Amino acid sequence: MLYQHGTLGTLMAGLLEGTATIDEILEHGDLGIGTLTGSDGEVIILDGKAYHANEHGEFKVLSGKEYTPFATVTPFQVDTHFDVRNITDDEALLDKIQHDALSNNIFIAVKITGKFETMHVRMMPKQEKPYTKLIESAKRQPEYVREQVHGTVVGFYSPQLFHGIAAGGFHLHFVDEDRTFGGHVLDFEMNSGSVELSNIETLEQHFPVNNQAFLDTDIDYSTIDEDIKEAE
Amino acid sequence: MLYQHGTLGTLMAGLLEGTATIDEILEHGDLGIGTLTGSDGEVIILDGKAYHANEHGEFKVLSGKEYTPFATVTPFQVDTHFDVRNITDDEALLDKIQHDALSNNIFIAVKITGKFETMHVRMMPKQEKPYTKLIESAKRQPEYVREQVHGTVVGFYSPQLFHGIAAGGFHLHFVDEDRTFGGHVLDFEMNSGSVELSNIETLEQHFPVNNQAFLDTDIDYSTIDEDIKEAE
Repeated sequence: MLYQHGTLGTLMAGLLEGTATIDEILEHGDLGIGTLTGSDGEVIILDGKAYHANEHGEFKVLSGKEYTPFATVTPFQVDTHFDVRNITDDEALLDKIQHDALSNNIFIAVKITGKFETMHVRMMPKQEKPYTKLIESAKRQPEYVREQVHGTVVGFYSPQLFHGIAAGGFHLHFVDEDRTFGGHVLDFEMNSGSVELSNIETLEQHFPVNNQAFLDTDIDYSTIDEDIKEAE
Repeated sequence: MLYQHGTLGTLMAGLLEGTATIDEILEHGDLGIGTLTGSDGEVIILDGKAYHANEHGEFKVLSGKEYTPFATVTPFQVDTHFDVRNITDDEALLDKIQHDALSNNIFIAVKITGKFETMHVRMMPKQEKPYTKLIESAKRQPEYVREQVHGTVVGFYSPQLFHGIAAGGFHLHFVDEDRTFGGHVLDFEMNSGSVELSNIETLEQHFPVNNQAFLDTDIDYSTIDEDIKEAE
């Protein structure tokens, strides 16, 4: 089961107010990704703990009381796994994951643990009210690179039909072993480690039905494909 | 909660093999819509009973053992309701429903009960293997009109972001009071009756993970918008 609160589409449209607490998200799984109110940075959920990397390169454990407008989480259980023994870049590794996965037509949870030659991430800059479309803040997102870093990549593969609700294809976040660094994965080079995949049978899509802005906003989804491409 | 087995997208692509029984669908709700293996006709679920209207105008109660590739169901509970006192066509009524509904950004279950001056439906013709894209069989779908008929329209409003997973906007089926006639609603003129709406907080999207054709097929969704428009 994959639990998602909010959608990428409403986030892209600038509905950035947090509508569920991180504790509420953690009730539905122990591995996942998300962001905070204002689309503030990157949330990484691993082994039932939620971490946060902000645009300034600061990293912390979340208390659980923070609010999120968009988060995706699963009770991770391994269905497929393989080892990575040679240096490989993200493109080759994600190709292999897609090839080894049960199907390209279901959601797949991804956990990649090991040593990375390089890890290239970004953190979405926090918006203050009044919120605008996410591509506006995405334009000024800082990028960070770490070399020779141990850690874990977590996230999801989403089938193309669900592009807009989630990001079609892979959407991955990183957290290092020391829990001092993380972010939204742009690319990486992996040295060695392991890949674990979890097949998702059911998507539980939750809507923020108590948020007046969400209920009332007339959302234009006509440019969502290009917007996501630009922001991701 | 709205439970959906399969997606409109995979149905449009010609993945028409039934992958859940009607009894399994009925475990998740008492009001809904769907089709049977081969995209055979129209399933109408009302008050926990499942009915079937085929292309020949035949109508029957389902046993529950039949298989469906695509069905959507909810445990219906009324959140909003209003009476219809004057003759009104489907366009005006659906406009009013959309206006009165809690939001255009969530799924809404719809139940319209009363007397209809006219009810214009179609039934999707059953395909035999090898299955082709749904627009092929949709081209030869028969249409039926009944006048002065009592009955109930059931179905869902889906937010535009979910077009492709479901039909964006309204997707409605009809069953008459005598349980002898029904189908996929094309248009109608209502005389008098009542409208009941149920706000959906969570979509539980279930994938047919045990169906090899679904797992293996490389689906091209590039024409899905036009395909749905043509088939609906």
